[in-house]
Amino acid sequence: MFMHNKRLQYTVRVSETNPGLANLMLEQFGGPQGELAAAMRYFTQALSEDDPGRKDMLLDIATEELSHLEVIGSIVAMLNKGAKGRLAEGVEEQAEMYRSITGGGNDSHITQVLYGAGTPLTNSAGVPWTAAYIDTIGDPTCDLRSNIAAEARAKIIYERLINTTPDPGVREALGFLMTREIAHQKSFEKALYAIEPNFPPGKLPGDQRFTDKYYDMSQGDTDQRGPWNEGEQWEYVTERDEQLAVDGRDGSATVQMTAAEMELVKQTALRTSSDRTRNPVTGVDLGGGPGGGSNIPGSGRRH
Amino acid sequence: MFMHNKRLQYTVRVSETNPGLANLMLEQFGGPQGELAAAMRYFTQALSEDDPGRKDMLLDIATEELSHLEVIGSIVAMLNKGAKGRLAEGVEEQAEMYRSITGGGNDSHITQVLYGAGTPLTNSAGVPWTAAYIDTIGDPTCDLRSNIAAEARAKIIYERLINTTPDPGVREALGFLMTREIAHQKSFEKALYAIEPNFPPGKLPGDQRFTDKYYDMSQGDTDQRGPWNEGEQWEYVTERDEQLAVDGRDGSATVQMTAAEMELVKQTALRTSSDRTRNPVTGVDLGGGPGGGSNIPGSGRRH
Amino acid sequence: MFMHNKRLQYTVRVSETNPGLANLMLEQFGGPQGELAAAMRYFTQALSEDDPGRKDMLLDIATEELSHLEVIGSIVAMLNKGAKGRLAEGVEEQAEMYRSITGGGNDSHITQVLYGAGTPLTNSAGVPWTAAYIDTIGDPTCDLRSNIAAEARAKIIYERLINTTPDPGVREALGFLMTREIAHQKSFEKALYAIEPNFPPGKLPGDQRFTDKYYDMSQGDTDQRGPWNEGEQWEYVTERDEQLAVDGRDGSATVQMTAAEMELVKQTALRTSSDRTRNPVTGVDLGGGPGGGSNIPGSGRRH
Amino acid sequence: MFMHNKRLQYTVRVSETNPGLANLMLEQFGGPQGELAAAMRYFTQALSEDDPGRKDMLLDIATEELSHLEVIGSIVAMLNKGAKGRLAEGVEEQAEMYRSITGGGNDSHITQVLYGAGTPLTNSAGVPWTAAYIDTIGDPTCDLRSNIAAEARAKIIYERLINTTPDPGVREALGFLMTREIAHQKSFEKALYAIEPNFPPGKLPGDQRFTDKYYDMSQGDTDQRGPWNEGEQWEYVTERDEQLAVDGRDGSATVQMTAAEMELVKQTALRTSSDRTRNPVTGVDLGGGPGGGSNIPGSGRRH
Amino acid sequence: MFMHNKRLQYTVRVSETNPGLANLMLEQFGGPQGELAAAMRYFTQALSEDDPGRKDMLLDIATEELSHLEVIGSIVAMLNKGAKGRLAEGVEEQAEMYRSITGGGNDSHITQVLYGAGTPLTNSAGVPWTAAYIDTIGDPTCDLRSNIAAEARAKIIYERLINTTPDPGVREALGFLMTREIAHQKSFEKALYAIEPNFPPGKLPGDQRFTDKYYDMSQGDTDQRGPWNEGEQWEYVTERDEQLAVDGRDGSATVQMTAAEMELVKQTALRTSSDRTRNPVTGVDLGGGPGGGSNIPGSGRRH
Amino acid sequence: MFMHNKRLQYTVRVSETNPGLANLMLEQFGGPQGELAAAMRYFTQALSEDDPGRKDMLLDIATEELSHLEVIGSIVAMLNKGAKGRLAEGVEEQAEMYRSITGGGNDSHITQVLYGAGTPLTNSAGVPWTAAYIDTIGDPTCDLRSNIAAEARAKIIYERLINTTPDPGVREALGFLMTREIAHQKSFEKALYAIEPNFPPGKLPGDQRFTDKYYDMSQGDTDQRGPWNEGEQWEYVTERDEQLAVDGRDGSATVQMTAAEMELVKQTALRTSSDRTRNPVTGVDLGGGPGGGSNIPGSGRRH
Repeated sequence: MFMHNKRLQYTVRVSETNPGLANLMLEQFGGPQGELAAAMRYFTQALSEDDPGRKDMLLDIATEELSHLEVIGSIVAMLNKGAKGRLAEGVEEQAEMYRSITGGGNDSHITQVLYGAGTPLTNSAGVPWTAAYIDTIGDPTCDLRSNIAAEARAKIIYERLINTTPDPGVREALGFLMTREIAHQKSFEKALYAIEPNFPPGKLPGDQRFTDKYYDMSQGDTDQRGPWNEGEQWEYVTERDEQLAVDGRDGSATVQMTAAEMELVKQTALRTSSDRTRNPVTGVDLGGGPGGGSNIPGSGRRH
Repeated sequence: MFMHNKRLQYTVRVSETNPGLANLMLEQFGGPQGELAAAMRYFTQALSEDDPGRKDMLLDIATEELSHLEVIGSIVAMLNKGAKGRLAEGVEEQAEMYRSITGGGNDSHITQVLYGAGTPLTNSAGVPWTAAYIDTIGDPTCDLRSNIAAEARAKIIYERLINTTPDPGVREALGFLMTREIAHQKSFEKALYAIEPNFPPGKLPGDQRFTDKYYDMSQGDTDQRGPWNEGEQWEYVTERDEQLAVDGRDGSATVQMTAAEMELVKQTALRTSSDRTRNPVTGVDLGGGPGGGSNIPGSGRRH
Repeated sequence: MFMHNKRLQYTVRVSETNPGLANLMLEQFGGPQGELAAAMRYFTQALSEDDPGRKDMLLDIATEELSHLEVIGSIVAMLNKGAKGRLAEGVEEQAEMYRSITGGGNDSHITQVLYGAGTPLTNSAGVPWTAAYIDTIGDPTCDLRSNIAAEARAKIIYERLINTTPDPGVREALGFLMTREIAHQKSFEKALYAIEPNFPPGKLPGDQRFTDKYYDMSQGDTDQRGPWNEGEQWEYVTERDEQLAVDGRDGSATVQMTAAEMELVKQTALRTSSDRTRNPVTGVDLGGGPGGGSNIPGSGRRH
Repeated sequence: MFMHNKRLQYTVRVSETNPGLANLMLEQFGGPQGELAAAMRYFTQALSEDDPGRKDMLLDIATEELSHLEVIGSIVAMLNKGAKGRLAEGVEEQAEMYRSITGGGNDSHITQVLYGAGTPLTNSAGVPWTAAYIDTIGDPTCDLRSNIAAEARAKIIYERLINTTPDPGVREALGFLMTREIAHQKSFEKALYAIEPNFPPGKLPGDQRFTDKYYDMSQGDTDQRGPWNEGEQWEYVTERDEQLAVDGRDGSATVQMTAAEMELVKQTALRTSSDRTRNPVTGVDLGGGPGGGSNIPGSGRRH
Repeated sequence: MFMHNKRLQYTVRVSETNPGLANLMLEQFGGPQGELAAAMRYFTQALSEDDPGRKDMLLDIATEELSHLEVIGSIVAMLNKGAKGRLAEGVEEQAEMYRSITGGGNDSHITQVLYGAGTPLTNSAGVPWTAAYIDTIGDPTCDLRSNIAAEARAKIIYERLINTTPDPGVREALGFLMTREIAHQKSFEKALYAIEPNFPPGKLPGDQRFTDKYYDMSQGDTDQRGPWNEGEQWEYVTERDEQLAVDGRDGSATVQMTAAEMELVKQTALRTSSDRTRNPVTGVDLGGGPGGGSNIPGSGRRH
Repeated sequence: MFMHNKRLQYTVRVSETNPGLANLMLEQFGGPQGELAAAMRYFTQALSEDDPGRKDMLLDIATEELSHLEVIGSIVAMLNKGAKGRLAEGVEEQAEMYRSITGGGNDSHITQVLYGAGTPLTNSAGVPWTAAYIDTIGDPTCDLRSNIAAEARAKIIYERLINTTPDPGVREALGFLMTREIAHQKSFEKALYAIEPNFPPGKLPGDQRFTDKYYDMSQGDTDQRGPWNEGEQWEYVTERDEQLAVDGRDGSATVQMTAAEMELVKQTALRTSSDRTRNPVTGVDLGGGPGGGSNIPGSGRRH
């Protein structure tokens, strides 16, 4: 069960209102790398996890991320507080109101007009948060890798946000949130490597013919080599013919159909066949301008 | 520039049509862990990558994923080929058609009725593919971690799909695709660790007060410990008071407003203040049934 | 700050696994009327709310909804637990696995194949949760009305779910969740009517010419009257002419443009003008089958 | 059946073009609180409603909302008319065109470049309208409450828009639209309370143990009380132990599985178990910078 | 202004209830090729159209499509009417209710549980309608082509639906709706070709070097030729070298940066450079199972 | 199988960085009319196409569109290159960074903060690409018409983009991409008209009573006539009575239910019936301000 204490995990002190900055901060409130995504990624994993240690860790961190959602949301709310008053009371002259709403230089207008200078679960472009951001698939070695990557991404977005404001109180709170992503990444790494083996994920082994091949699919210029495709581990395949139909068959796609199915497919083919022997008059010919059209006798066209 | 050869990277041989199975396979065609997501994840990274080695690798793998998209799409097309003919010609008796369309036991009806038994870019529930699945953020140590996780996830979905069909040709092609995810994960791991240091991602260091703390936010029962929160690296914080307002202030959220802003906020507060001294009659009182409502003299209600 | 206790707010006892039922239950986990939507609706309101009483209430209820999210999610996890094991280990014969995955008769296949029989934040059709479900706009009398309506809707969805299962443990837990929606609706009603006046919402008064008019826009058959359009409060307008251009002007849309703008608009009009004097040959004429096409001399068409 | 008259329900007179203002107005055209959402909310309810009185009312109001969609859309079209000409003819010098397209200070660039300065069904941030905005669930007492809340929200958005423009013609038309939301709210309220009882919605009664409890889930500071949790109606529960496992059991989640299911779950647990006795080397150790990494003998790392 | 008459444009007579069929019919109610998409496509075009003839046509057809939305919605409502009663009253035994809800073999469960057996604006997979389906861009020759294509697609979806039901009343109404798509396509074709020239759309001419080239990008097997790439109109380019960098330069992407920009780009490159001379130990090495991992002295791994 | 060559199909030379322009260009990268939509439209058609000629054409053009995706993406990457360095290194003073991020005047802030000044698959408003943009339905005469329309739309968006920048290198590359849309449209037109007959699409003929009728649904002012509703082909129906219930029945919607179904429907009707004889007190009455509320004796309200 969740409980709440009205004190934040980190004190938020904002030195002046700024709806434009508030809007940027939404990136970590309702954006893809934000705190709701983090909290829900770990929470959904926790619910289905049977390992008591990992379950506890996932619940610990999910709960902390909810607390971070509250911190970043409070920053947004404070930055928007002036706009909220202006908007609710509507006492400004209208042209001035228009300027203050659209002058922010980013999407703060949507936060203001639609969301009342509140804390909507959108990113900084006004795109509503979607669970499509969550990549939980229910396998612990995958989900932990997803968590590691997610923490790394969130760290960077906080770094970018810190670089956009000189407000010391905001910078300090963002710095705390950023740091916690680092700590969480470390926990998830420990949890991943505490499972042995953890690679490849799942149970089915790979097909030994293809586990160590590197296909040089992009060519031209000098191909670049590095440890990801070079060394004794790798077989580097650069001939186009050896990249095609690597199973040694013909590279076609076939299906065995019943006679009835084949008959219907044939009927469709016949009904929709292209007459390739003829150069048909087309809509382009009818509608083309000078240089683009054709002459169709009797069609009444100008040229 | 992309080029295409009509031979597939892996030959597809399907032993009988099955629109229900086709629909499941869509998971790796237009689903979140599928091949379009993979191809576009690496392609978008490649375009903005300046490091020639990583750029080449990303283009190699993006191109191969497009080729995989073609392989899995060809499996779907073959499995659907019978349904496509039936649907296009419409020669079946209608009740039979209804049964064959809705009898698949999963969402194959949508693939058939809306997409003509083709190869739509949806997942197996009919949800259209969205770029919200792509987590590229433009930092190489983050993006490579995202790629590692994505390959791990895709490997598992292929494993699940392999377990759903006894068709040897389909299983073999899926096995190839699954194996390549393993190989790609290995390449991305090499590329990540060829950058040193790669942790923490980005430039800003964490706040040393918070990098090694583990907050025990979920309590009750016996707390579980493990290398992710135990050992000399970690400081385990379990007291609720030490989890709150960890900066040592009061855990509040404040903003300095101008006098004009404060005046407006005060006006709004006054206008929308709650009268807490009174127990107002509400809509529930008006509309409640026996036991739920109240008696409002003169309101004409039955009870 | 949020905290967590591993005991649920309500004990969940499921008497047998059933991935099909699990999938239906997702409606209240990641569906539009579900617990995440509720929690986030109230949480986003709380962050921007300045009235201390309402803010506290919103936080109380948001936190309880998160706890409900955990209860319904635990029901889903328990119902899916058998499928999770089968899927992860993949020991079943494939055709049997296919049947168990697709035989659920609803979208449980997506929960299984994509989400590993876990607890995804989707509705029962596999549609990812979106913040578009949240209707917070940052005005208390509106947001409270939205909350009242949301609680009423959630109550009904629980009622429908309760009617789909005889499992006593599931029914009892769902009954608890349903009941809490009733209690929350009552709180929100009290909070709404504690603001006086609360109607009309906002500050601007309506235009007195139009506040009491009822436009009978749908006619035919006998028009139905009721307290919503009948009685001394209402002026019932049924004449079409009195419904049109109710401001007394001509019902047109006009804009004053600069001369330069007018010139450009004229140019566009000229360039894209329709020649209405001519009956042009069209693509339909070129492509029509017997009875549908026309005869275009020299176009080489068959008929 | 729907019919149309080319005269608007309210005359639209715009005094000068302004694509930035046009973009803001989209909020009520294709935004979540806009007229399409209103029209479709009531129209979908009307189609399934059997009560002749409510059905007629829903059709009346749905039809009026479509007429409002036309009014607000006409305002957008007029405000955009200058931009439309400029864009279609492309006669401006390019740098000037770039300035006029991106200088609006909000998302008018998308309306112009993608939608040709037309009237797209998006909100003012360019997010396409989605039926996820519609909360119809097919129960009259719920749907009417949803309608009441929706009208209240729409009223406020109009109020905000009115405050952003001094153009008298636009203000007047917006004022009409705003007023009609007030009138519609009144009708829906009458319709709700004409059903008796209407609370709680649906048929199933609540569990009497939980209908009047208020759980004080958010604590810290002084808890705030009000009619929503105070008075004889309410039992205020503040002890954490009384909030947990309120059914009197242990607050756990359990399921009865078959022996076969249990065996598989056990296998998965074993295969993915965490070795908690060991402190594994992780990716962070491999990749950490100074102060962040560890010393792994023989791994060839620099530090 | 829109008006409504309670008589449908076409009488709907359904011979028995069937929620599964109702669900399929949603494809043309809230699906991408359905009537709402059609109505809104033409309506948004009409609002911005200045040509009086085309504007009138667009309004005529938009209004008719709204009337069709009502017809198809009424079919859905009638087919769902039995389920609606069962669901609202909940009198069935629960296991029976579960069977009737999930036994439909397609997504009718979502229509029932979430939408109360109503008429939701979703497609038959439960995906909410989105304005992303609408392709209006504000140029008449483009928009008319989009309309022609949209009518053709809608015709086919109706054809598929007709083939799924023997119910004569449903078939007849669907046949009417299908026929009207044919008629509308003819109108849009006439309107397109009444604009001369209409090809290429817009004002800017194409680059003559590239208007008649056909790039044979997909090779292998025997290339297929037809009027789309054969004949005197076309220059068929099959040599890969002639497909690349067709402007005659080197096919690279370059940008001129300021010195300051270049310096920063160089810094980033240095900071994130790959050490390609070293074969780093990776997470895969740490976590690999037998045959997959490596030996890292001192890392405490088992193998 | 796809292959890649590092040389672009068209050389990209950008003369200065400009993140605002980069953002506009996203319209053709990840927007609805952009190159990914084009490539995926044709690719999904190709996979299910059995006609060898059309399949080859679709693969040729799909592959070229992927190459165009690379060209437009490279333009975006070059325009963003300066911002990418600034952002990654974070060396600017914060207020300056804020200005450069939010000063672009369109949504470039989202590209920078969230996507690291990269090449995200969004449109210029930051809306993620969705497969809902793709209108493939699996019928060749429909899909070709969709392709024709799509090429026309893409041509116009390129034209608009060309008009926004004086950079000669960008204009030239955009001009190439625009021209290829013209060439592709011509190919698709030839392919459509090579199928005979291609109208009406599909197999089912229209209902002869309704193929040539034009319903004048929008009236008022002088109705406009043109070849789309005038001439011997058309029967113009303007009487409202002849537009209603065109099948000659009563325009009602009916369904035959079983006795049990009828009984349940009746129960629901009774339970939720409106009492139309009474004017109920409503929430509006309780909450209305001066002039808006009513007098309810004993309800404790102030007025």
